[in-house]
Amino acid sequence: MLTALAGGVGAARMLRGLAGVLDPAAITAVVNTADDVVLHGLHLSPDLDTVVYTLGAGSDEERGWGLAGETWTVMEALERYGGQTWFRLGDRDLATHLYRTQRFAEQATLSEVTAEVAAAWSVGVRLLPMSDDRVETRITVAGPGPGTSTEIGFQEWFVGRRHSVAVERVRFDGAEAAHPAPGVLAAINEADTVVICPSNPLVSIAPILAVPGIADAVRARRDDVVAVSPIVAGAALRGPADSLLRELGHESSVVGVAHLYASLAATLVVDDADAELAPGVEAAGMRCVVTPTVMRGRAEAAALARVVVGG
Amino acid sequence: MLTALAGGVGAARMLRGLAGVLDPAAITAVVNTADDVVLHGLHLSPDLDTVVYTLGAGSDEERGWGLAGETWTVMEALERYGGQTWFRLGDRDLATHLYRTQRFAEQATLSEVTAEVAAAWSVGVRLLPMSDDRVETRITVAGPGPGTSTEIGFQEWFVGRRHSVAVERVRFDGAEAAHPAPGVLAAINEADTVVICPSNPLVSIAPILAVPGIADAVRARRDDVVAVSPIVAGAALRGPADSLLRELGHESSVVGVAHLYASLAATLVVDDADAELAPGVEAAGMRCVVTPTVMRGRAEAAALARVVVGG
Repeated sequence: MLTALAGGVGAARMLRGLAGVLDPAAITAVVNTADDVVLHGLHLSPDLDTVVYTLGAGSDEERGWGLAGETWTVMEALERYGGQTWFRLGDRDLATHLYRTQRFAEQATLSEVTAEVAAAWSVGVRLLPMSDDRVETRITVAGPGPGTSTEIGFQEWFVGRRHSVAVERVRFDGAEAAHPAPGVLAAINEADTVVICPSNPLVSIAPILAVPGIADAVRARRDDVVAVSPIVAGAALRGPADSLLRELGHESSVVGVAHLYASLAATLVVDDADAELAPGVEAAGMRCVVTPTVMRGRAEAAALARVVVGG
Repeated sequence: MLTALAGGVGAARMLRGLAGVLDPAAITAVVNTADDVVLHGLHLSPDLDTVVYTLGAGSDEERGWGLAGETWTVMEALERYGGQTWFRLGDRDLATHLYRTQRFAEQATLSEVTAEVAAAWSVGVRLLPMSDDRVETRITVAGPGPGTSTEIGFQEWFVGRRHSVAVERVRFDGAEAAHPAPGVLAAINEADTVVICPSNPLVSIAPILAVPGIADAVRARRDDVVAVSPIVAGAALRGPADSLLRELGHESSVVGVAHLYASLAATLVVDDADAELAPGVEAAGMRCVVTPTVMRGRAEAAALARVVVGG
């Protein structure tokens, strides 16, 4: 039994690798939902959908998000109205949001909808949202002058502004009052191995850990927790993890990641490119495993998964 | 100045005819919104959209509803989830619903959104929803046995059950508390001619008249009100107006229509096919004008419009 804490693309590829070396039914992914956003009245769960589409073999491998063979008819038509098109929603992807929103109107929980969507894509891994309660990542970005900082939603920063503005603060609105989704704590408690996927520590993994009870559960399993660094040679493979680490006062390196995860995980898996930093990881209090971590394809993902499972 | 009370397809064609013989800017259409429905979290205004797409030259002439050249990618993708696909929403049509729903979230009124959508389609006629308040047509349909009647939403009856179940009752939920949208009463008061379009009297025109103030305003203009019968030779050209008239105790004929409209309109325009019923219309208290009323194309619509405007 393996339980993974997961964000978006990097986590999805890690999970696909794990599902190639373990029985998918023995794997539970606890997925970040603090990136969720309501747009056009539709409830979007971007990280959940990325994991579903990737594990369901629907994802666009080149773009890294969304569905392969996607079309954009609705967004193009929305341009006629000058509507909000900064978050490009593909036609087939939209169906997922329509379904989720309709099920919410029918009083379904996000856990229930997630199970239904995953089943429709024949995803063998059990997917759990971190919480059925609403938690929202809010980003304080620097303004043009002193005292002009503003707090915006995660997607407005990440997609709308292409995470190109300096971040001063990140908080997870609603986290204090949120409860872990059904099954989350048990999945952590009962797993042989808990994996922290190579996702952004500050905006993908941190919100999961901000749900009361989850960080404590992971910490209690520290000896069996393996984190995979999303930082390779000082940079994020994709997304803004590197700049975000720096902006929020952390080191953009595997050592910076080790300092963030040392209380939660006994082991940090880092890329060959960071072999020389292994002593720094060990000094931060984590065992350091060095192996290729860049998952260009399924073979690399499976090889990395074998190392992670092997501990 | 001309003001028309309008439902869906028949009204849209009548309005297109009127816009061909009058300055479109001199025409105001007050459109039924009691068919509006929230599906997948999206706010649909089917009658408004039919009028916009028809006047904006976007409508599918053969199907009579929705957009020409429409694609159905989202609905096909929704089938994967077993989602609600009984109300087929085209991809380009969906953009209208996304836009409207987003604008509602931004606290825009239906009047405001309608003006924006109409402008985007270069609709020259001024379109007003009957009300910015929510009014919902509710249909009581007969069940399989005694005491098994159930009340359902309009679209569930009209689209979901293809209006094939017998109707026992129609009511307009919320109408008592609704207010006419800004400009509606003035448009009726100030028009040279008020036209009741050839729409279903019981579920397209009746909800407009159920908004407090509108029926009184029309009645006060009775001498200048011209209704066009949606019933030709005892049958509805499209939709269930004929069966609905019978089920609710009315005569499915121009005479039945005259009895419904006599207190509101001085004149009823009927098709040549109903020439012999003119005395019955007159007996019901309306002047009867006999002319071709079936609008197969723009030429017929324009000819009918000339008769209507000529009074």
